[in-house]
Amino acid sequence: MTRLKTLLQLDSFHATFLKMNASGTIFVAALNGSALAVGAELAFACDLRIMADGEHVIGLTEVLLALTPGGGGSQRLPRLIGTQRTLVAVLEGRPFTPAEALSLGAVDEVVPQETVLARSIERAEYLSLRSKKSLGAIKRSIYFGSSLSLEDGLQLEHAEFLVRDQSKEAQRRMLEYIATTDATGELPLLNRETYARALAAGRIGGSPSE
Amino acid sequence: MTRLKTLLQLDSFHATFLKMNASGTIFVAALNGSALAVGAELAFACDLRIMADGEHVIGLTEVLLALTPGGGGSQRLPRLIGTQRTLVAVLEGRPFTPAEALSLGAVDEVVPQETVLARSIERAEYLSLRSKKSLGAIKRSIYFGSSLSLEDGLQLEHAEFLVRDQSKEAQRRMLEYIATTDATGELPLLNRETYARALAAGRIGGSPSE
Amino acid sequence: MTRLKTLLQLDSFHATFLKMNASGTIFVAALNGSALAVGAELAFACDLRIMADGEHVIGLTEVLLALTPGGGGSQRLPRLIGTQRTLVAVLEGRPFTPAEALSLGAVDEVVPQETVLARSIERAEYLSLRSKKSLGAIKRSIYFGSSLSLEDGLQLEHAEFLVRDQSKEAQRRMLEYIATTDATGELPLLNRETYARALAAGRIGGSPSE
Repeated sequence: MTRLKTLLQLDSFHATFLKMNASGTIFVAALNGSALAVGAELAFACDLRIMADGEHVIGLTEVLLALTPGGGGSQRLPRLIGTQRTLVAVLEGRPFTPAEALSLGAVDEVVPQETVLARSIERAEYLSLRSKKSLGAIKRSIYFGSSLSLEDGLQLEHAEFLVRDQSKEAQRRMLEYIATTDATGELPLLNRETYARALAAGRIGGSPSE
Repeated sequence: MTRLKTLLQLDSFHATFLKMNASGTIFVAALNGSALAVGAELAFACDLRIMADGEHVIGLTEVLLALTPGGGGSQRLPRLIGTQRTLVAVLEGRPFTPAEALSLGAVDEVVPQETVLARSIERAEYLSLRSKKSLGAIKRSIYFGSSLSLEDGLQLEHAEFLVRDQSKEAQRRMLEYIATTDATGELPLLNRETYARALAAGRIGGSPSE
Repeated sequence: MTRLKTLLQLDSFHATFLKMNASGTIFVAALNGSALAVGAELAFACDLRIMADGEHVIGLTEVLLALTPGGGGSQRLPRLIGTQRTLVAVLEGRPFTPAEALSLGAVDEVVPQETVLARSIERAEYLSLRSKKSLGAIKRSIYFGSSLSLEDGLQLEHAEFLVRDQSKEAQRRMLEYIATTDATGELPLLNRETYARALAAGRIGGSPSE
């Protein structure tokens, strides 16, 4: 009965993590302490990881309990830090310090403990200025497409592109882009100031995203 | 009509890029300015990227137009710089400076603007000293094989090897190699001077490639 | 006849290398000299590579003989150092010095020649303190799972986890872990001293592995 509960819980983790990867919502793990085993696996399923500096660690410790990762750790960590670094860390059961995690790419930023939540919200808000449908298409292309064969991945990307390309928002922005190019005589994104403004706003052109 | 034209153009890009990846010809992108979106995707489909130093950038900007990459960028950039670095850059729409691109591996070299073409030709000529059929077999094994499951990739590599192994040129070079080993009492490639000469000539032994 | 022998030998290499990757035994390549072509491929099929410092090199030289790697080098090296670094090195036929191999990740450690064997045995013994069945499950999840599509890889990991989770050893260790948590009021692995002891012993808790 307990074992069945564990299995159902694990299935539900998997479904949730895959839904996160396929969604246009940005997930940022704000790590204000240690994240071991399934805690690390939840963090690895997010789009970004911001970790508090200090005596914390993050890693996959299952081998020390005669187990193997079961919540996706052996699949998502290689996509962050490479196959060999993952293999050595998981065989050993040794977690990473914040400095190690940052230098390997297991986390994206290490910040003082008191700023970890504010910085995570800031990053999430910044990325969320972009079209949510584009963010979803990009996440699916990269998370799912880039783990297929090159040809199958290209086909998945292509399909995602065609849906976005036919959206009213993209058509409108592209027409605006072409009109600005005609009027100013240069491609707007090759102008550094225009580019910096576009990054800050999450879009090029005047009107907000859909 | 315009939309159909775009789609046909995109299909033709894809076919061309895949043909480049499968071919024994070496493609070097000489980047003497910024390469954004499909410009970057063409560069990523080449075998090497040499970028001019300066105020240029390279990257995938589609999200700022409410799009997603469509010319292979979301598939080929992860194979250059890893999944997570690609994800963050593409979600943000932020291109790389030459220094960033070099340190991540998105380009292979950064050189002064006035030497970018000469250096690109030099690299292409150097690699082209090698057997063209070997270059093609290597490119197919790595571009296509290494994005399959380990077992399928090994099978593809194996098939490419058998074709090369049965070629007259490889048989001739191998017999020459064995004869030199017998005559000198050491494996020629373990001699540093011989090795340096072989790299410079693109082959070990006296006669030019087929 | 010679050609048939070569092919049969290559098939037997492949089968052996795949058996090594799937097994719970830890394989450490102790490299006290140069490893070229199939010598490098054997090293790449091991779980760890310890290389002696000195005038040695390691790499895939097949292009110089008008060949392409045939023993798995074009598939396993990308999993160590990435696709692009592999492509450039294999197209060129240029091997890595110990310092280059270490910095790229083609080898795990570089040590003085006289200590290479002792250090390799030390690493193998350290990892072998862990449950052999866990080591096998981890190796299969990472070597085979992480080269599948994300969803297929998760399924393979999941299957490996369920087998381990139902083992008597894992159940016993988990019950012990929960009892210690209840008794001490903290998760044992969040205590740094307990963790260091667990890494050194290869397990958390008192009794040796199965």
